[in-house]
Amino acid sequence: MMYPPPIENLIDEFRRFPGIGPKSAERFVFHLLRGGARRIDALNAAMTALRDRIDRCVECGMVSEQERCRICANPRRDRTLLCVVAEPTDLLAVDRSGAFQGIYHVLDGLLAPIEGIGPEELRITELVARIRKSTELESSFRIQEVVLAFDPTIEGETTVNYLAEMLSQDDILVTRLARGLPVGGDLEYTDPVTLAGAMSGRRALVRRSAQPVESPFQSIPL
Amino acid sequence: MMYPPPIENLIDEFRRFPGIGPKSAERFVFHLLRGGARRIDALNAAMTALRDRIDRCVECGMVSEQERCRICANPRRDRTLLCVVAEPTDLLAVDRSGAFQGIYHVLDGLLAPIEGIGPEELRITELVARIRKSTELESSFRIQEVVLAFDPTIEGETTVNYLAEMLSQDDILVTRLARGLPVGGDLEYTDPVTLAGAMSGRRALVRRSAQPVESPFQSIPL
Repeated sequence: MMYPPPIENLIDEFRRFPGIGPKSAERFVFHLLRGGARRIDALNAAMTALRDRIDRCVECGMVSEQERCRICANPRRDRTLLCVVAEPTDLLAVDRSGAFQGIYHVLDGLLAPIEGIGPEELRITELVARIRKSTELESSFRIQEVVLAFDPTIEGETTVNYLAEMLSQDDILVTRLARGLPVGGDLEYTDPVTLAGAMSGRRALVRRSAQPVESPFQSIPL
Repeated sequence: MMYPPPIENLIDEFRRFPGIGPKSAERFVFHLLRGGARRIDALNAAMTALRDRIDRCVECGMVSEQERCRICANPRRDRTLLCVVAEPTDLLAVDRSGAFQGIYHVLDGLLAPIEGIGPEELRITELVARIRKSTELESSFRIQEVVLAFDPTIEGETTVNYLAEMLSQDDILVTRLARGLPVGGDLEYTDPVTLAGAMSGRRALVRRSAQPVESPFQSIPL
């Protein structure tokens, strides 16, 4: 005994969603059935709008309804600062922090040689072309700093190292997000690498000179 | 900063799915975007088929492509045995066990007075009409036993009690699923009510008389 094919087919479709197993997929289908034609039509319309109206920004690769996304089209953003992220979701997270007023570049993933994701699979050529092209522009449009904002994972580190090497010939500052204690974290249970990163990146609080303290600890090269 | 409206709208649609929060909904949308028009069209087509081709069986209320579901249309099913379940998903679970060869009735839920779900919200009138109507038929089509197969919850118990009372005037046997230890369970950690149910419903293994043992324990009236 199985469900009729239209139900089994839709269960199969939902099972392809990330993190969704057969029971969740079945619940989704019965949720739609309970809502009837109205609920199904609303979802169909929302998906069709996604298909027809969403494209990538020609400059940064962010999802966008227009040719240029709202950030790239905003004349108040600082075009000398470029933040490189893996995914559109990361771009939104960085921008919501309010701590970055520059522009972005979406790589479409991180380097993962074991899974066969090399530089050609990512938007790295576009990144390099964009930086080189900006050197021909007047100074307020010339990229002076590239901030690498990736997940603190093996793939993130691999991508940081690759891009740092690749951009070393250019006359730009390449930086990365700080390692440290997350807000609400627990020092006692923080892993040694994070703690070492927080120590080597520690900030002066009350010092007349306002100079950063010279670290007596070895900086962790991550 | 938010995503463009087509993305935010679809995130809102997916958030209505059972058990889905904002982050999962966002992941679903980007999963669809990565799959492109092809993935979106496949899902749209599957949902349209669900809307247009799935209805309820006129006899039992199971989801069905035909007027009568495959079980009700099967002449080999025993029409003297009727199993009442809350949802189509429960029907499938009972039928997959292979232990029941009769026909079914889907109630479309369980009684939950606190949430405002009374007998009128369920397909109880249809159940009673179906049983009464069968008494006019020849004996192989006359319902002789009604098995109540509900979740072992407060709502399930409430519905068992209500239906047992309602069907007490009819000349039929009303039964319910046994309580006991689930396969793979752990006796040590089994709750007292389940354990008491398993004790009072215990089965004779080797007894010449083959009569059930008269219980020296008080039977739990659940």
